[in-house]
Amino acid sequence: MVSCTLCKRRDAVYMRVYSGEKLCPKCFTSSIEDKVRATIAKHDMLDRNDKIAVAVSGGKDSTTLLNVLSKIEKNFPKADLCAITVDEGIERYRDEAVKFAAGACRKLGVKHLVVSFAELFGVQLDELVEMLKEKSQRGADTLSPCAYCGVLRRRALNVAARRLNADKLALAHNLDDEAQTVLLNIMHGDPFRMVRVKPRLEEKHPMFVPRVKPFSEVPEKEIAFYAYLSKIRFQSAPCPYASTALRSDIRTMLNRMEEKHAGMKFTVYKSAEKIRSSIEASDNSVKLRECRVCGEPASSDVCKPCQMLRGLGVR
Amino acid sequence: MVSCTLCKRRDAVYMRVYSGEKLCPKCFTSSIEDKVRATIAKHDMLDRNDKIAVAVSGGKDSTTLLNVLSKIEKNFPKADLCAITVDEGIERYRDEAVKFAAGACRKLGVKHLVVSFAELFGVQLDELVEMLKEKSQRGADTLSPCAYCGVLRRRALNVAARRLNADKLALAHNLDDEAQTVLLNIMHGDPFRMVRVKPRLEEKHPMFVPRVKPFSEVPEKEIAFYAYLSKIRFQSAPCPYASTALRSDIRTMLNRMEEKHAGMKFTVYKSAEKIRSSIEASDNSVKLRECRVCGEPASSDVCKPCQMLRGLGVR
Repeated sequence: MVSCTLCKRRDAVYMRVYSGEKLCPKCFTSSIEDKVRATIAKHDMLDRNDKIAVAVSGGKDSTTLLNVLSKIEKNFPKADLCAITVDEGIERYRDEAVKFAAGACRKLGVKHLVVSFAELFGVQLDELVEMLKEKSQRGADTLSPCAYCGVLRRRALNVAARRLNADKLALAHNLDDEAQTVLLNIMHGDPFRMVRVKPRLEEKHPMFVPRVKPFSEVPEKEIAFYAYLSKIRFQSAPCPYASTALRSDIRTMLNRMEEKHAGMKFTVYKSAEKIRSSIEASDNSVKLRECRVCGEPASSDVCKPCQMLRGLGVR
Repeated sequence: MVSCTLCKRRDAVYMRVYSGEKLCPKCFTSSIEDKVRATIAKHDMLDRNDKIAVAVSGGKDSTTLLNVLSKIEKNFPKADLCAITVDEGIERYRDEAVKFAAGACRKLGVKHLVVSFAELFGVQLDELVEMLKEKSQRGADTLSPCAYCGVLRRRALNVAARRLNADKLALAHNLDDEAQTVLLNIMHGDPFRMVRVKPRLEEKHPMFVPRVKPFSEVPEKEIAFYAYLSKIRFQSAPCPYASTALRSDIRTMLNRMEEKHAGMKFTVYKSAEKIRSSIEASDNSVKLRECRVCGEPASSDVCKPCQMLRGLGVR
């Protein structure tokens, strides 16, 4: 066995290719927690008396984030951690995930709020998918279920975070997600969306809860290994509607590239950071106002969720 | 046989996936020439009395560009076309390519200037590669031969274009090259270089000959098919030093993506265009001055070619 590069005592179980480190379970686990602490500090993500709402789907990344933040926040007694799960209404998938999320919250003693698409939008994702199918059978152009789900989920999280009086909304997006999004935006012809690949996203609107991403510099693989070492239980089944489109091709491609060029994902992430500051400097951003249908923060007269729901005849 | 989408008479021999067109040889050939004309017009690349120097390596893209421009310029009697070949000094490779370039120029009645690394820099690429090997054996960090060759070749082309009193330097970079460069810059952590992926590059310096890329919206595959239909002869052997590094992985990846998502390369190219205008607006550009070693245009006190040659003890 090779011994751990850091403690030089215990056996290494993880080889971090991009840094050359070989790590034992204990040092690996600490290294992730240190990385998260450093990311939080670097981007000034959290204050010591923040109420932090973690978006917990019940999957690997978000359940792990809840565990890591709960560990870190033990040192900040004035901070308050709670969790939000969005029940999109996907039969035999989300119901199971909600149980995992609830279990994790119970174990950590964290308050848990579940909000549903049904409650907030009067329609479940399963129903939306049926509507989309019908619409596309009539020959109309439609987006993928993921596009609808993403927009509505972000809205649901913001509404729920406000209900909890949260100061911050913590999302479990990892380095892989962020690097994929950068390339996705470029390959999709929508590069200015890169501005939203941000470890800390704030909008000048009182109804918008600032979003932070403490995992944005942690590779997906390392979160998986952390979860394994910490015996974190999560839902591992993929969403039945998960699109096999562009993002999943980009994921495969980036993983291949990372294997041959260690550190690639981080470089892509850093490139976006550089471009972002230029884009922000030239100010293509839009000021938020209130949607005239629902009153939520919107970048145009009618917000994206309302536009989507109207397009399907729901609102 | 399927008939041509455009003329509806002749048999189609080329399926253009991203547009759905099926084209006969004649319509395919015209479509490429029209595309080049449109690209030239859109970016105001050429004036009707320009002296245009085409960089002709003797390979597929540049030999085809010379043929296409020669055809187009027939309608502009005041314009003048000439060709430049850079002989980097790569034994059993470039010497053969130079012959192809010379043959193409003779056939088209185009004046041909050959400049060599030996003449301009006092050193051949073969020698540089040896120096790089030695340097890296001594444990020093070195760039790839391609990095050196690229910098020196661009300098050589600019010097040669000035010698010919050319108003424009035409390069045969195609859509694939440009899309690859966009991703390469991002994956390499150098996103601001994207600013130079431009169909028309001008610098505010009298010694810099403006560069235009009439093929920047033509996919590599279509240039190959044009060359085949027009029976253009060119060198097809790859450079012996061609690095198998990042760019070639990106090429493979982009080709895979294009197969699954037709039009992807063009979308990447267009994304870079959007980002570019933001970057340019926020003005990260540097003013050119003269290199204090060689007097050529430089972005710093000593130009990149001189820095490289000095690093190897040549200058």
